[in-house]
This record gives sequence, structure tokens and C-alpha cells, in this order.
Amino acid sequence: MILLKSLINKSSLSSPSFKSINKSLTFKNINNYYTTTTTTTSLNLKSNILFNNSDNKMSIDNKEKIRAGLEDLMKRRFFITQSFSIYGGQAGLYDYGPPGCAVKANLINLWRQHFVLNEDMSEVDCVSVTPEQVLKASGHVAKFADFMVKDEVTKAFFRADHILEAHIQTLLKDTSKMSKEQIEELNFVLAKAGDYNQEQLKESLIKYNVKAPETGNALTEPYPFNLMFQTQIGPSGLSTGYLRPETAQGIFTNFGKLYEYNGKKLPFAAAQIGNAFRNEIAPRAGLLRVREFTMAEIEHFVNPNNKTHPKFNEIKDVEANLLSSDSQDKTSEIQVCTFGEAVEKKLIDNETLAYFMARTQQFLHTVGIKPAGLRFRQHQKNEMAHYAQDCWDAEILSSYGWVECVGHADRSCYDLKVHATESKSNLSAYEEFKEPQFVDIAKVVVNPGAISKKHRAAVSPIKKYLTELKDDLAKALEIQETITKDGSYNLVLDGNTYDITADMVTISKAQEKKNGHTFFPHVIEPSFGLGRIIYSILEQNYYTRENDEQRGVLSLPAIIAPVKASILPLTSSDRIAPFVQTISKALKEANISTKVDDTGNAIGRKYARTDEIGVPFGVTIDFQTVEDNTVTLRERDTTKQVRIPISELASTLRKLCDLTVSWSDILKTFPIYEGQSE
Amino acid sequence: MILLKSLINKSSLSSPSFKSINKSLTFKNINNYYTTTTTTTSLNLKSNILFNNSDNKMSIDNKEKIRAGLEDLMKRRFFITQSFSIYGGQAGLYDYGPPGCAVKANLINLWRQHFVLNEDMSEVDCVSVTPEQVLKASGHVAKFADFMVKDEVTKAFFRADHILEAHIQTLLKDTSKMSKEQIEELNFVLAKAGDYNQEQLKESLIKYNVKAPETGNALTEPYPFNLMFQTQIGPSGLSTGYLRPETAQGIFTNFGKLYEYNGKKLPFAAAQIGNAFRNEIAPRAGLLRVREFTMAEIEHFVNPNNKTHPKFNEIKDVEANLLSSDSQDKTSEIQVCTFGEAVEKKLIDNETLAYFMARTQQFLHTVGIKPAGLRFRQHQKNEMAHYAQDCWDAEILSSYGWVECVGHADRSCYDLKVHATESKSNLSAYEEFKEPQFVDIAKVVVNPGAISKKHRAAVSPIKKYLTELKDDLAKALEIQETITKDGSYNLVLDGNTYDITADMVTISKAQEKKNGHTFFPHVIEPSFGLGRIIYSILEQNYYTRENDEQRGVLSLPAIIAPVKASILPLTSSDRIAPFVQTISKALKEANISTKVDDTGNAIGRKYARTDEIGVPFGVTIDFQTVEDNTVTLRERDTTKQVRIPISELASTLRKLCDLTVSWSDILKTFPIYEGQSE
Repeated sequence: MILLKSLINKSSLSSPSFKSINKSLTFKNINNYYTTTTTTTSLNLKSNILFNNSDNKMSIDNKEKIRAGLEDLMKRRFFITQSFSIYGGQAGLYDYGPPGCAVKANLINLWRQHFVLNEDMSEVDCVSVTPEQVLKASGHVAKFADFMVKDEVTKAFFRADHILEAHIQTLLKDTSKMSKEQIEELNFVLAKAGDYNQEQLKESLIKYNVKAPETGNALTEPYPFNLMFQTQIGPSGLSTGYLRPETAQGIFTNFGKLYEYNGKKLPFAAAQIGNAFRNEIAPRAGLLRVREFTMAEIEHFVNPNNKTHPKFNEIKDVEANLLSSDSQDKTSEIQVCTFGEAVEKKLIDNETLAYFMARTQQFLHTVGIKPAGLRFRQHQKNEMAHYAQDCWDAEILSSYGWVECVGHADRSCYDLKVHATESKSNLSAYEEFKEPQFVDIAKVVVNPGAISKKHRAAVSPIKKYLTELKDDLAKALEIQETITKDGSYNLVLDGNTYDITADMVTISKAQEKKNGHTFFPHVIEPSFGLGRIIYSILEQNYYTRENDEQRGVLSLPAIIAPVKASILPLTSSDRIAPFVQTISKALKEANISTKVDDTGNAIGRKYARTDEIGVPFGVTIDFQTVEDNTVTLRERDTTKQVRIPISELASTLRKLCDLTVSWSDILKTFPIYEGQSE
Repeated sequence: MILLKSLINKSSLSSPSFKSINKSLTFKNINNYYTTTTTTTSLNLKSNILFNNSDNKMSIDNKEKIRAGLEDLMKRRFFITQSFSIYGGQAGLYDYGPPGCAVKANLINLWRQHFVLNEDMSEVDCVSVTPEQVLKASGHVAKFADFMVKDEVTKAFFRADHILEAHIQTLLKDTSKMSKEQIEELNFVLAKAGDYNQEQLKESLIKYNVKAPETGNALTEPYPFNLMFQTQIGPSGLSTGYLRPETAQGIFTNFGKLYEYNGKKLPFAAAQIGNAFRNEIAPRAGLLRVREFTMAEIEHFVNPNNKTHPKFNEIKDVEANLLSSDSQDKTSEIQVCTFGEAVEKKLIDNETLAYFMARTQQFLHTVGIKPAGLRFRQHQKNEMAHYAQDCWDAEILSSYGWVECVGHADRSCYDLKVHATESKSNLSAYEEFKEPQFVDIAKVVVNPGAISKKHRAAVSPIKKYLTELKDDLAKALEIQETITKDGSYNLVLDGNTYDITADMVTISKAQEKKNGHTFFPHVIEPSFGLGRIIYSILEQNYYTRENDEQRGVLSLPAIIAPVKASILPLTSSDRIAPFVQTISKALKEANISTKVDDTGNAIGRKYARTDEIGVPFGVTIDFQTVEDNTVTLRERDTTKQVRIPISELASTLRKLCDLTVSWSDILKTFPIYEGQSE
């Protein structure tokens, strides 16, 4: 249990029973060129399946079996492996083998099509090595940390929240002598420990008298450990850098160029796909918490006064599973409602945020996430950064519980503002008013003579500062008020303090006619963790054949399957071999990835091996092929086969992979084949 | 000049005049699904072009102008920018803006199709963060270094070879008082400095009395600076790691799993596309020497006894520009010969190496590298690692000279052997003989009693070591010989030394009948630097319009162009606007990337802006569109236009981008349009 806890969202610990959603989630397909795959698999062919779509319940009983089966499959078929395993492996670092790598590449291509191409985003590709100054500005150097404790004697280290949780779980094993209130308190701490700050962790570790595991020694106080990998840039030894913990900063620091590239018009979105690095204290649970991972992030820049979205209409009737902040405080019940309703009720803050949530949902459904296995959880007030306006995580259900896979945050203007301040660059946008407007400004009358008398050396910067208050009415009035009340205002400039008195400046409110205004755009950020999505897809699409638990199948949509078609000669006969070459070549030319299995294995064994890596279609060459130039074509989930002429094979497979025809169309078009049994 | 020197190959300094290749380089297209683009541009429309394909000469006079024009374009149109430029930038780190990022993504997709799909490679995706042990085994911790010197007083640092070269160049500015021999010597040092080892650099810096630039202070002796970025993995502070300096190690450490994945058969190839990191001492010259860059590497594992290639026939008549090691010693003349001839003459060591060189050439031609601007340069004996069998760099000509962009190395079994030794893992392959063979082995008779008398505590490891000598005949005989000659052999095991005497072991040569043998596969490694290739493509495809040097054009092949079609409304009329939406949507659905320019600019200005980022086709919507649902379609290089019905636009553009029809076909199919002048 402790293993699961840290990586699933805290809310799942309060056990919100996932409500059965009887309505099927309809969503309009806004991209004609691909649709969610529909297979005609009858469910009675499957067992050990995580989701039963008919009642949308997770098969909790099978959870451990499914995870173990999938992990064995992933290892045997080289989907994913611990990096450097010949050297004993390195915690939190994983390599993708050929099938995993192909799924990842397909996922990235589809993401690019779904978001970058369809939404006219500006994709960038920025570096990982980042100078300290950039990450100081963003707040990562100061705050991107987890809390550690050490065994006072052995110096072994632990994540403070993990060790607290483990202790509470031990206490909860025997509740016979506890009051109801005590049990509730312990459960509350267990649910919240992951969000505790340094002080809260310290207090709880003392209160519950937590000691080092195994040794029972005293623990140090919790202290922060920054999760960024640190390095030195260049040979001077004076230029500290970090590996980026997210890709977003590359977009923010390039905002000016992107704004220019987009014709200085808002809104526009930038996107980036790339690696991020987090030096986790104790990485665990496979692909879900790792030290190096691929993200796909979008930063959609908008005018804060207008967060409507021109294509909102296209998704407003799409339904989603929403777990609001309010609901988490109360019943933890999931609401099924349309994005249109959610925005109308102010459940989701604005159209643009909702639009991206809907597009994320469409993307996830397309790549194989089951509607019942996807929900959006709103951040609670105490989880959100102070500047954030609204945040919704797309959480995907797997054997680890609900796992955050895509964040959707309205980050207001925080990022641009901190970088503008720190870099002293202009990262603002300008909006021309439809017609000139009168806007409130500060009328500032400066008396340089009076300033000079008292602060001779600093007349010019003081004068500059005061004059520029014109566009910051609030600050200007605050200064005037202080002078009026206290007789003077202490102005701090470049580390020096100057007292400003009434004779030096007079400030009043005025109006000015303006043609437009300058402002920091707000940013709405969908942020995808691709490794977590890939793992979730695999789990949700893994099953075993009825009556044969050894035969694992990955029911991956053709669009992300690592190999689209297997080519299987029935025997190693010299008469059959030439067809392998011809067909293989023809499919490659149609850009269909194939894998030939010309081992001496029986055909059933060959099918089983391709089922395991999710190959949707199998082409078998037999002696009839030699006679009449036809082959059998088999679909993975139904295991049904048709007999098809070689001349029509490539075009048919191309259409099946592009989803312009369905397998049931094929069953109607070509003769069913029932020759070889599996 | 110093700026250029370090990043171009040394051989280019000995000024091999690039021979005019009058034969046009024919190469067979082995992939039907894409062919090199052919445009019908007449050359008199272009000026400031790097290559004149008619005589294959670089326009040396325009070199600086071209580079400056392109750099300005890249900056203005946000192809590439220095990273973190709002913070003053960071040397050696570059971000790709939207057009650059799209070119890179297209290049990667094509690479994957050309190599991974077509050659049935096993693609993997491994992590960058690498534990020290792995890079110690590979030799990088000890040897992946450049040499630095410091100003004794100011401590400013320099790359030792750069400072030596700069000094020699200064000396060469006035040769009036030098003898012919002296001038030759200086030129020789200039050409070789980049390859000098620590001792040679030290001697030369003393000999030529090199001082620190600007200050004239004395310099320290040269010392190595390791080029890997170092970091710590996890919070212990005890686990040193590095960012990978190449992607290859991820493949070597996964060899066992890959061998298994490929059915334990040789040959097979693994591939990887990913970032690598090198902490250059003094990065410069834009994308050509950077600290973080994307590589695409192939490791093709073969049986050392058989380096033939099954598809060699398909490329044997392809011609290439070869600069052999011998030729570099003599005339530096480039030989134009077929890969078949080159292997036959033993110029290229083996078929597999030659096959990959040919495939690389096809790839580079497809993405826009001019035949005359590509050569293969063989490494000279003193450049090659001791274990390497043969190495050929694909060098591309740009304003920086001939730049190494793709390495092709036969690395023998070095990498697998060092990792097998260091990790104590089995990284070998097994080959079954066609029929059983008698092979030489060592017959080892061990006397544990005698060992026990002298080395009681270590009997078991000593016995194990001696017994295992069976399969290492050479080592076994060496030990026996030493015992016979010196009376004992000093065996080092786990840091302890044991003397082994004649009473402990008897070794003799024997024969054994075997069904197969175990061996380390050799590896042939094509290694692509994508950033260098992208920069080279841009330079070789940049030109300005005749009589208008302000109008830069990037003549990128459609297959890698960042945007395939621009959509240009002639005016902002409300009657025209709806067509922009319809056409934009139709093209997106055909997966054709577009960019709309609905600014008020004149149409000529709009074309110029799309020419600059290499958009091959322009769709203009005018008032005739409203009348008859036709638009004009313009090709970038010819600037010719046709009038085409909207209903046929998407399919026509799709075919143009897939290169299944050519622009000259289009000119014959649709009416030529000469309405709008540019």
C-alpha cells in the first residue's frame, strides 16, 4: 500500500467509489481524419481485463494479477527495461525497447497532429541544460523540493512524507484500542501527508514519534532536497546550471519571439515535446515516478479579459467525468456533465481551459484510454499555487489507482511576469482598443529641485521611478497616501533607501485618452506526462484470452500499435519464402510497419507472440498463397480471419490503420477464412 | 578564419580543391515511396546561391554574404535562437523556433522511415542521465576530453588547440622573412593542431612561444577538461552521473535484450534518436558546435566473419565522392566511384559499411543536400581509435567548409567487450556451425591441493579462473610459458596477487569437437548529427531572387519544408474570409500543414514571407474564387502559378508533398495563371 500511495492522487485515498456511469460518453469527433477505433470484440473472449466497459467497473480482484502479467510481458517483449540493468540498474531510469519506443513515437506523432497541426500551435524545441538564473526566476531553485529525513546514526535517508505515511499505516493495522476520532485523525494525516510543508511534517513526525525503519534510531528534522539535477556549464566552475524539471520555461523565455512570430496577436499557443528531469529522492512504481521522462506541454497565451475560445462550440456538448474541488471536500462524487454546463456553472473557470480539457479527453480516448477510466480532478485551494486561477488534472485509472497524467492549469500571468522582472525584458502584449478609451492614470508632478537638495546623487533614478508611476495608479496612490499620512515615503532603489516628502512629488488621479494598452497575457497550460499515459494505455488494454491466462493480449488501437501487421509464413517451405519478401516490401512501401516471424513455431504460437505486442493484423502465407496469390488476414481481438488477394493487401491495411474502413467492413468484403486453428 | 577552422575537418585546410564532377551523380531510388524532389527552377532566377549545380562549384565570393543573409533570416523568422536570450543567452545552447522545429521533426520522421522502417531496425529510446560506471567502461570518463590552458595571471581559459592555431595564423600573416620550409611547417601545425595530444600541444606552445591573447601573460601547460556534464543521481551525494555524450551506450548496454528481441540472429541493427550533451570549452559557430544536440545513431551488429550485406546489390552502382586516407596523404583528390568498385578495391573495408554510406547519401540527397556538396572522407590511421577497422565521415560543404555531419565507423567488437568485462554480463552472440567443427582449446589440469597449500583462502576463485582458461587458448599458453620460463606466474584476482607455480596447474593445447561458437559481434555505426545536417540544408538551399537581394528563399524539398502550403487571402474582404476557413480545414484534414497570412500586406510581400521559410506552395484566394471556386496555386522556386478548383486542392497538394506528382505535371494539368504580379 505504501508503494501505491505516493504516486496516486491523495484524493483517491479517501476512497471516492468510482460511480458507475451508465450513459455512454458521447463525444463529437471534430477531426474527420481519425476516429476512435471500434473493435467488434465480444467481451466473453477476454479475461483478466482491467475494465469491463459494460458496467465501467475496475476488476479490483484481478488488479495484482493484471499488473504482474503486464510487467512480465513488458519485460519479456522488451517494451521497457530498467536502464543499465547489466550494471545492476539505476532506480528511476527506464529505457524503451523497440515496441515501447514505437508506441511512444506513434503517440508523439498523433499528439502533434491533434494539437500542433489542428490548433495551429507554434511548436518549439528548447534545450534541457538551463542556467541557474532562469530557474531562480521561475521559483524552482527555491521551491522545487521534497522533504527528506536522515537516520541520525546510519545517515540512511528517506522521504519525510513516505516515512510518516508508513508509520501511520502501521498504527492503523491495529485500531482495536483507538477511538473513532483517533482513527479519523490518522486517516486524515495519511491522506494529507504528501501535501504537508516542512513545519507540518516536523510536527507530525514528533507527534507520532516516528523513528527510522529497521534501526529504530532517531530521525533528523525534515529538510528540503531540491529535485533538480545540478551541473556546471562550461569549464569555469562558476556557471551553475540545472536540467530542466519541465519544458515550459523554454516557451516562457521565448515569449517575445513567439508573440512576434504570431503577428503580435493573442491568443496563440506554443507547444513543446521533450525530456524533463527530476532527481527523485526515492523513485518507484516503474514508469509512474521516474527521474527522466518525456513531456508534451502547451502554453496558450490569452488576453486576461477574454478567455472565451472560438471553437468552444465544437466541444460544449462533450461529456466528462468531473471531480470538483467542492466534491472532494464533501462526497467525493464524480459529476458527469458537459463542458458547456461546467463552464456555465463556473465549475470550470473559463472556455479556453474547458476547451483544452475536452481536446485532451479526445486525445486520450483515441489512444486507447477507456471513458470510464478517465476523470478530471480539480485542484483544491490549498493544492494550487497562489497565482493559479483554476487547475484540473486528467487522472487515469490503473492498478495504482487514479494517476495524474495531464495537468490543465490557468497559471494567470505569473510566469511571464517573473521572467520579465528578473530578465528586465519586455514580455508583455499590446492590445489596440476598438476605439480610443479614457483610462485612469496617475498624474505625477515631480520637483527635481526638492529631490536634489536631499538626494543629490540620485536625482535622476528617483525622478525616473516617480515619473513611471504614471501607469501604475495603485502604487502611485499608495505612495501619495503614505506621504500624506506619515510625512514621507521610504523609496528603495537598488538597495538604497530615500525618503520622499511632499515637496518632492504630487500625485493625483487623472484620465488619459489611450488607443490601446500593454499587459501580461495569461497562460493556460495543458501538460502531458507521456510515460504515465503509455503505462496507463498498456494496463487498460491488456487482457488474457478466456481459458488461457498465459496468452496476454494488448488491445492497442492500430494508430498507436508498435507494429501494424505481422507477416507469418505457415512453414519454412522454399515455395512460401519468396512471398514473405514481396509482401514485406509492398507493405513497407505503403509505410506500414511489419514484423516477420519465420521461426518454426506453430501458427497459434506465432499469433500469440504478435498479440502480446499489440499487432492488430496478421498476414499468413500458406500453400494456397502459392496457388492463388491470396493470404489470410487476421484481426487481433476477434481472431477472425478473411482470405484476401495479395494485390489488395497493402491498400486494405493502409485503410484499416487510417481507420477509413473498419474490421467489420472487411468481414463483409472478403470471404471468411476458418482454415487454421489457433 | 580562426572561427572557421576548429569545426571544419582538418583536411579542408590543406585546401583540396573540390574537383568539378561533370558526370551527374546517378543513384538508384530503392524506395519507391519517395524520390528526390526535382524542381524546374531555371538558375537565372537565383543569385547568392552557395552551389551552382551546373558546374558544382561553391560560390566562394558570396560565402560571407550568404551566411549573413541566412543568419539574419533564421533570426528574424525564428528558425533558431540562442537559448535564454532574454537573460543574455548561453553559449552553445540553441532553441528551435516553429519553422526550425518543424524541419527537425520532418527530418526525424523521414530518418525513421528511411532507416528504421526500411531496414527493419530495432529502435530504442534510452535515458540521458548515465551512471559513472557505464562511462568508465566505455572510456569516456578517462578520455573524452579537450585540452585547456589558462592565463597564469588572469586565469582566463582557452582551448589549447584554438590558441595555438590563432598564434600560427598570426605568424603566417607575414611570411616575407620565412623560408619555404618554415611556411610549410607552420601550415602543417595549423592542419594538425586539432588532433594533437597533450604532449604535442605542450611542445608546440613552447616552441612557438604562445602567450595569452590580449594580456600577453604566460600560459599554463595544457591539461585535459572532460567534456561530459557531471551531476549527482539521487540525494546521497555518492552517485556520480553524467549526461550521455552520445546515444550509443544505451544500445550497447541493452545488447543482450536486443539480441534476444531479434531472435538471437545476426546481423541486426538497433537505432536511437535522442539528445546528447557535450560541455564544450568554447562553443561557437552556431549550430555546428553546441553543448546539447540531437543525434540519430545506428548500431548494426554483425558476425565478424561475414560483413557482406544482403542488399548490397541495390547500391553497388551508386556513385559517391570519396576522399580516401591515402589521397589525403598525397593529392587530396576526390575519387568519384561506385560503392561496388570501392569495396572491390578494398577502399571501403566491407559491404555493410559501404551499404550504410550509400543509404546515408540517399537520405542526405532526399533532404536537400546537393550531390556536389557531399563527400565521404576516410579517417587517417592516426585519427582512428586503435580498435576501429575503418571510418568514413559524410562531410557536407557549407560556408564553414567541409563539415563532418555523419560518421560511419566499423568499431569492431570494442564496445560490447568493454561493457561485458566491466559489467560481468554476457554480451556475446552464439553461432551454430553448419556442421560440427574441431576447434583449438586449452586443456587445463588444476591441482587444488597444491594451490591450497600456498593460497588457502583463495583456492576456489583461483581454481575457477584457471579452469575457465579453457576457451582462451592464447592467455592460457601465455601463463604456461611464463611458469615454464620464470618458475611462476603472478595472477591478479580482485586486487590480490597470487603466484602460480608448475605444481598447481598444467596447461596444454588440445582440440574439442564443437557445434558452434560464442563471439563478440562487431558493430558498424552510422551516427548522424541532426543540427549540423539542418544547418547545412538551410545553407545549401538558401538563395536570393535575381535583382532582389532582400528576398531570401529557402528552396527546401517539400518533404522537410516546415509548412507545406500558405493560404493567402488577396484582401481582407468579408467575401473572401470564409474561403480561408474552408480551405484551411480541408488541408488540415489531409494532414497538410498550412500557415494563413491574413495581414494587409500586398500579395508579393506575402509570397516573399513564405519563400523565406521555405513554404513550397502558396494558395491565393481572390475575387475569382468567390465567382468560380478556384484558387491560384504557386510554386516557390519557379514562382509559376496555376488556377485550380478548390475541390482538387487538397488531393493535389497531398500528391505534390508525397512527390507522386511533380510541379511540371501540374503545369500541364491546370491552366497557367498570370494575374497577380509579385
